[in-house]
Amino acid sequence: MAYKTLDITGIESYIRNIGFFERHENFHTEEIGDGNLNLVFRVSNRSGKSAIIKQALPYLKVFGDKWPLRLERNKLEAEAMKIQNKLAPGLVPKIYRVDEGLALTIMEDLSRIEVMRLGTIQMKKYPRFVDHISTFLANTIFYTSDFFMDPLEKKNLVKKFINSDICKITEDLIFTEPYYDCPRNNVNPALRPYLENKFWKREYLWHEASKLKYNFLTHAESLIHGDLHTGSIFVGETETKVFDAEFAYFGPSAFDPGLLIGNILINYVSWDGKDRPLEAIRDYRTYLLNTIEGIYEEFIRKFTEKYKKEVKDISFRNMRYLETYLKEFFLDMIGYAAIAMIRRMHGLAHNIDVDGIEDLKRRSEVQILVLELATSLMMSRYRFKSIREVTSYVKSIIF
Amino acid sequence: MAYKTLDITGIESYIRNIGFFERHENFHTEEIGDGNLNLVFRVSNRSGKSAIIKQALPYLKVFGDKWPLRLERNKLEAEAMKIQNKLAPGLVPKIYRVDEGLALTIMEDLSRIEVMRLGTIQMKKYPRFVDHISTFLANTIFYTSDFFMDPLEKKNLVKKFINSDICKITEDLIFTEPYYDCPRNNVNPALRPYLENKFWKREYLWHEASKLKYNFLTHAESLIHGDLHTGSIFVGETETKVFDAEFAYFGPSAFDPGLLIGNILINYVSWDGKDRPLEAIRDYRTYLLNTIEGIYEEFIRKFTEKYKKEVKDISFRNMRYLETYLKEFFLDMIGYAAIAMIRRMHGLAHNIDVDGIEDLKRRSEVQILVLELATSLMMSRYRFKSIREVTSYVKSIIF
Repeated sequence: MAYKTLDITGIESYIRNIGFFERHENFHTEEIGDGNLNLVFRVSNRSGKSAIIKQALPYLKVFGDKWPLRLERNKLEAEAMKIQNKLAPGLVPKIYRVDEGLALTIMEDLSRIEVMRLGTIQMKKYPRFVDHISTFLANTIFYTSDFFMDPLEKKNLVKKFINSDICKITEDLIFTEPYYDCPRNNVNPALRPYLENKFWKREYLWHEASKLKYNFLTHAESLIHGDLHTGSIFVGETETKVFDAEFAYFGPSAFDPGLLIGNILINYVSWDGKDRPLEAIRDYRTYLLNTIEGIYEEFIRKFTEKYKKEVKDISFRNMRYLETYLKEFFLDMIGYAAIAMIRRMHGLAHNIDVDGIEDLKRRSEVQILVLELATSLMMSRYRFKSIREVTSYVKSIIF
Repeated sequence: MAYKTLDITGIESYIRNIGFFERHENFHTEEIGDGNLNLVFRVSNRSGKSAIIKQALPYLKVFGDKWPLRLERNKLEAEAMKIQNKLAPGLVPKIYRVDEGLALTIMEDLSRIEVMRLGTIQMKKYPRFVDHISTFLANTIFYTSDFFMDPLEKKNLVKKFINSDICKITEDLIFTEPYYDCPRNNVNPALRPYLENKFWKREYLWHEASKLKYNFLTHAESLIHGDLHTGSIFVGETETKVFDAEFAYFGPSAFDPGLLIGNILINYVSWDGKDRPLEAIRDYRTYLLNTIEGIYEEFIRKFTEKYKKEVKDISFRNMRYLETYLKEFFLDMIGYAAIAMIRRMHGLAHNIDVDGIEDLKRRSEVQILVLELATSLMMSRYRFKSIREVTSYVKSIIF
């Protein structure tokens, strides 16, 4: 079918035509998307059968048609999800159907669980999350790397996942614009004096961000998710599902855990702007620091186990190489965490952890705390020796 | 035309059919190839018109049909040459015709000048070489990098130049096999005791080689030549032409100058195994060290000039970033030089600088000198601060 954007009526007739539900059966359709890149619908019938339909838009929504994007990304996203699902079974939504013409994917409805960001702003805890996400990270990073893959197959996959217009969004919005007074930034007016007098004068910080940007532009290490923040993960008591894989490409392997840790740290700081009992805040902050430690330490444990058993290339069989790799990985991961914290404060796209603080002055105070913490993590990352040194450092500043 | 390998008769009728020479004109055809990957012919008529015909073989010749290679590389090589010729005009042979079906390219005949390796083993000097090759390096590296290219166009080009089976040759023969007793190595029997008792026990050296291999596998920085040794360059008094670009792909930008410097250092050491007056040897060695210094220093001067004026991406406009980039570049370049020296001593493919020493014992003494020098360059590269420190160090050991 030739591409056109579908509205609710369009989705209804499409779903009817493909026979997703029984013939003549009634079902309900609603638009649930709030993203910038896609239309998202949910269809469901009375007996509880449901699905999500995600259709790519040919532009970045927030800019109308001024920032065009290729529709092929929808197919690429589905292919990334299939690979992730194969490597980390059960940790990614199931795909029911991909329609290349309409740039549309029908996939598992996960409304039985919730988006992690919405849970964490309510201080929810997820007992299985660390185990699940560390498996997702270890498996996707290891099995798509040169440590495991055949070099010819890996390069074919690198080629397939060249995702240039999507990467450009990250290059601009995450790595570049937050470091100067770019018109596209979305700046809280109460934060502006701090940005102008302090933050944007930190040439040394921008320099570190540019080093990481160069890695993002040039290092094709593993097939990464590319946008792994807490808004890209569904969680529940027993389940974790990573979604929104359209930023997937072969990039720096430390990018995904870095982004995730940065987003958890935003939540961590955000409680300074919210009226909760200090005891509750400290309890939740302890949970968040444990989560960060758990993600990294479990990732390392699982990755190392795979590496020891399954590394294919003779050049990397010496465990000393693993040490070299993980040292660089850790350094970059902390850098990407800082990058992720910064871009959500005054870049184009924010998140509700902090933007949920309605008073702009109070919000700016939290934003400054996040930006100060991110700056010091970025600049201190060369001297941290373990994730526990990082979490102790965070706790020593804000708790 | 469907692919088949052409012999002299085949080339003759092909050249006649395409009307390269005047109708009914006599011309001479000879096979001149000695490579491993291609058939190479030269055609010429009495009035001095001539051309080179290079046809890709579907396998690596030295292994018969046991190491298959895609024929598309011939077209890719021609495209790399076109890009190089645009960026560094006059420093690459002209292309007259590309025949995709036959995986064949007709290009400028450069027999008026000579392959640099053949000149340097005769102690020839080339007054224009440093200027030419530093321009080739600065222009191809800068103009295909993220400093200059539009990120979407760059990634399209990265995609086009994924050259996996050719890269595999480098990965195996250069970065891996020389570091252990691989059956595919081509070992001078007189060298074997040294390899077994010393060289192959240097786990620390293999570790450094593997770091560089990982960069070669994952760092898509610039469109590099990929095989820039002295056998891939024609030189004369006034001309320099870089050929054999079939290893071109987006890789580590320090690879080309590193390989070239390593090959010059092989020639530098090789005189220890040849009977020339010490004065002549010292004079030529001084010339070679000056050449190495000139290549790097002129490259830096030209690259910096371009960077200052033409860097496009705002993230990299701060000159501090250039410093960061060049620091890493220098470190890797010395590493690749060491890699290049090592692989030519006992890997699959050698070169005549050292293999021209007929007495195997004497040859092994020179090979040991090269391997010792390469080892110490590799391990000391973190503490060298300039190319002149490197050349002084070389001179302090062998002169």
